[in-house]
Amino acid sequence: MRPVLEFFYDFVSPYSYLASTRVEALAARTGAELRWRPFLLGGVFKATGNHAPIELPAKGRYMWTDLRRWAERYGVPLVAATPFPFSSMLPLRAALAAEPLGKLPAFTHALYRVAWGEGRDPGSPEVVAAVAASVGLDGAALVAAAPSFKEALIRQTQEAVDRGSFGAPTLLVGDELFVGNDRLDFVEEALRRANGSPAR
Amino acid sequence: MRPVLEFFYDFVSPYSYLASTRVEALAARTGAELRWRPFLLGGVFKATGNHAPIELPAKGRYMWTDLRRWAERYGVPLVAATPFPFSSMLPLRAALAAEPLGKLPAFTHALYRVAWGEGRDPGSPEVVAAVAASVGLDGAALVAAAPSFKEALIRQTQEAVDRGSFGAPTLLVGDELFVGNDRLDFVEEALRRANGSPAR
Repeated sequence: MRPVLEFFYDFVSPYSYLASTRVEALAARTGAELRWRPFLLGGVFKATGNHAPIELPAKGRYMWTDLRRWAERYGVPLVAATPFPFSSMLPLRAALAAEPLGKLPAFTHALYRVAWGEGRDPGSPEVVAAVAASVGLDGAALVAAAPSFKEALIRQTQEAVDRGSFGAPTLLVGDELFVGNDRLDFVEEALRRANGSPAR
Repeated sequence: MRPVLEFFYDFVSPYSYLASTRVEALAARTGAELRWRPFLLGGVFKATGNHAPIELPAKGRYMWTDLRRWAERYGVPLVAATPFPFSSMLPLRAALAAEPLGKLPAFTHALYRVAWGEGRDPGSPEVVAAVAASVGLDGAALVAAAPSFKEALIRQTQEAVDRGSFGAPTLLVGDELFVGNDRLDFVEEALRRANGSPAR
């Protein structure tokens, strides 16, 4: 039995972007099965009473410094998306529409690259369609299909909340909860334990 | 010129406790001068609008899980202090009173051990006096001197806020700000850069 790593992420969350650049290698190193699970961070905040860091000026300023440190450590581009926060509703629904087509990871990476690597607003139908096309999907068809994934996105968000999430990214190894890109090393330890492998 | 690491901490903050068990070795490894700087986390929250994690049920539950993971990683005892949160005003002022006596680090470690290693409320004059005595100070005299450090504690807290703090622990390397026990590795990198040493 391979351990399963569930990765709950929202495109609007830059820490989720950072984690998205690492979870595949992490799963490969630990022999885990990775499940990509888009969810709506705004829904999580609403359900738990939590708030985005940028709602506090001091926290918001620090967040950008902290994000740059992580991006440098990971060696990935990071440009503040304009506008921020943007609406991630459409790309999240489109991601769920891409899932049965086998393109969820590719779409996720491409969307994140646009939003946080290039700093473009990924919330519009045009950008979502272009991102979809860049990974070999029919962009107009994906955008057209997105609204029918409204309920699926709500369900996935509620499931994360029910399992303890209050922020993004949320990572689950069974019922072990981890919140934040900065907990990936603990996630890795949990997966090694689950797999009976020795620690690093 | 040795780089300086300023460590702002409050006894009520379990993440500050965790960091307190690592900062000396970190400073030694990087050739840094360590400055212990007690501050009042409640004052930081008031000034910045930030809130303690335990104010949100989901975040509070996760916090204890997360704290246990860190304590296990560090190999240090961790018992939830009773009551929590407790008033850290008296021990913080007493810590400042212990500073001119050369006992600030020793008092800090001993107080943290009582609060988070043994789970006892460290807010009472009796416990503060006993902790002071355990590090070779006159406990009754330290408790009697504590009120005269009221303004010093307010000043130190305000300074941290002015320099960008919104939580605990806050670590500063010059004007480089780091918030959280989980940023000690970035602190170490900053100190190595400041010292012209190669990265680990």
